[in-house]
Amino acid sequence: MLLFDTIFDMQGQSEKYRSQGRKIGFVPTMGFLHEGHLSLMRIAKEKCDELVVSIFVNPSQFAPNEDFSSYPRNFQRDIQLLEEVGATALFMPTQEMMYPKGYKTWVHVEKLDTKLCGISRPHLFQGVTTVVNKLFNIVRPHIALFGQKDAQQAIIIKKMVVDLNMNIEIVIGQLIRETDGLAMSSRNSYLSEEERRDAVVLYQALQLGKRRLMEAGMGKTKILSEIRQLIEAKPTTRVDYIEMHSAKNLAEIGEHPQGDILIALAVFVGNTRLIDNITVSI
Amino acid sequence: MLLFDTIFDMQGQSEKYRSQGRKIGFVPTMGFLHEGHLSLMRIAKEKCDELVVSIFVNPSQFAPNEDFSSYPRNFQRDIQLLEEVGATALFMPTQEMMYPKGYKTWVHVEKLDTKLCGISRPHLFQGVTTVVNKLFNIVRPHIALFGQKDAQQAIIIKKMVVDLNMNIEIVIGQLIRETDGLAMSSRNSYLSEEERRDAVVLYQALQLGKRRLMEAGMGKTKILSEIRQLIEAKPTTRVDYIEMHSAKNLAEIGEHPQGDILIALAVFVGNTRLIDNITVSI
Repeated sequence: MLLFDTIFDMQGQSEKYRSQGRKIGFVPTMGFLHEGHLSLMRIAKEKCDELVVSIFVNPSQFAPNEDFSSYPRNFQRDIQLLEEVGATALFMPTQEMMYPKGYKTWVHVEKLDTKLCGISRPHLFQGVTTVVNKLFNIVRPHIALFGQKDAQQAIIIKKMVVDLNMNIEIVIGQLIRETDGLAMSSRNSYLSEEERRDAVVLYQALQLGKRRLMEAGMGKTKILSEIRQLIEAKPTTRVDYIEMHSAKNLAEIGEHPQGDILIALAVFVGNTRLIDNITVSI
Repeated sequence: MLLFDTIFDMQGQSEKYRSQGRKIGFVPTMGFLHEGHLSLMRIAKEKCDELVVSIFVNPSQFAPNEDFSSYPRNFQRDIQLLEEVGATALFMPTQEMMYPKGYKTWVHVEKLDTKLCGISRPHLFQGVTTVVNKLFNIVRPHIALFGQKDAQQAIIIKKMVVDLNMNIEIVIGQLIRETDGLAMSSRNSYLSEEERRDAVVLYQALQLGKRRLMEAGMGKTKILSEIRQLIEAKPTTRVDYIEMHSAKNLAEIGEHPQGDILIALAVFVGNTRLIDNITVSI
């Protein structure tokens, strides 16, 4: 695996791959890799000639009160996992390279970035779309892969790529769970034993929501209220949001929706904010 | 000259040029071409293997009360000029292709886009950076060329390209003037005979400013006031702004500045808003 720690060198390698007609698959990450990331990389390996991975904990998507400085890092282990999965190149820029002094340019996807996670984390999506735009210009992938765990992010990035005519295929890999159902996340490492046990309720609540939606009869408001009750019964949980939207474009839906419905939630378990979601086709 | 009227076809041609190792020079325009545009194209022809030109009157950089619908158009003449200058490809998308229903993604360069022209035209630069970003992703140029007439635009686009790691060389061509000194602009076609005569005062005023700066002694405030007086002496003129900034990055400057100083102005001549500028090295 080639390791690039400057933008110039990574960009040069990408141009080289392209000029050789090699198809580039790209998985951008913030490191502390888990099976969710690795599953995307295996898809990329199947679809492409080269697998480029980036590890960059992106400061512009964290608010000052959030966990940027404590975000879990384990580069040695990450590199070992990347070697095992067969990544071709790893790009690990510094904060100073990506956002040098006087940095001023931002990409944002209006309307989509101010709902769900965009309410409690108003910095988040402008930071995500900007860094992904930059990484796409550096890595120049043919295909880029993101996880369904970040459902809103997936929709926003697909919209950015289409709107800005970026000519990159965006592939969304399925959400990967622990055996007890907890969605895999680097932030799960923050949880205490008790919190880890309570956190399973997020998936149980989403499954309850799915059952209720498929039974029909019960309206959206009542279903969301049942989901909330189930989660709030656990001592360490505090709900940020639980919502239902169109899974395609996050559009508002009525009391008895049809089509592909996204149930998405963000819940604090202790001090750790976790997100999860499920898509229901009715 | 190849003519492309879909994003898909233009993007395909750009990839083809690149895969053949051809160097692409790009001049984005809003059409109604004049010697300012053509001078940029001649530079591109010298530096590159392929010259791609776009003609697109970009609605997102006009406010509702501005001249989007009346902006001068003469495609037959433009195509003839492009054939003469030796353009390889012309890209002419429609408004619906560039901004389809539900379009949501915007690129902006903070701070730089809220001064000078950004004050009286708050829509302008977000519209410019967004459309240029899109055009860059479609045409994938190695070099893109812009005129010094739009000095603030040139600085903002250079900043966007660096910040977003776009790997495109931005070349700024010198400001081209009519024989009496009026800066060439598609909007000069709006001027009545009397306004056209009065409009020459813009360049005369900039030259006065340059002389005063080089004589030293006189402060910025007094110089700007002399420039304003000269312009306002003409019956058809109304000043929007006259300012002095760092020519490199539009930074504020003191009363007795040093280095490369940009004197920039926007003046209504009748109902037509014209811009002009001069750079003075002291």
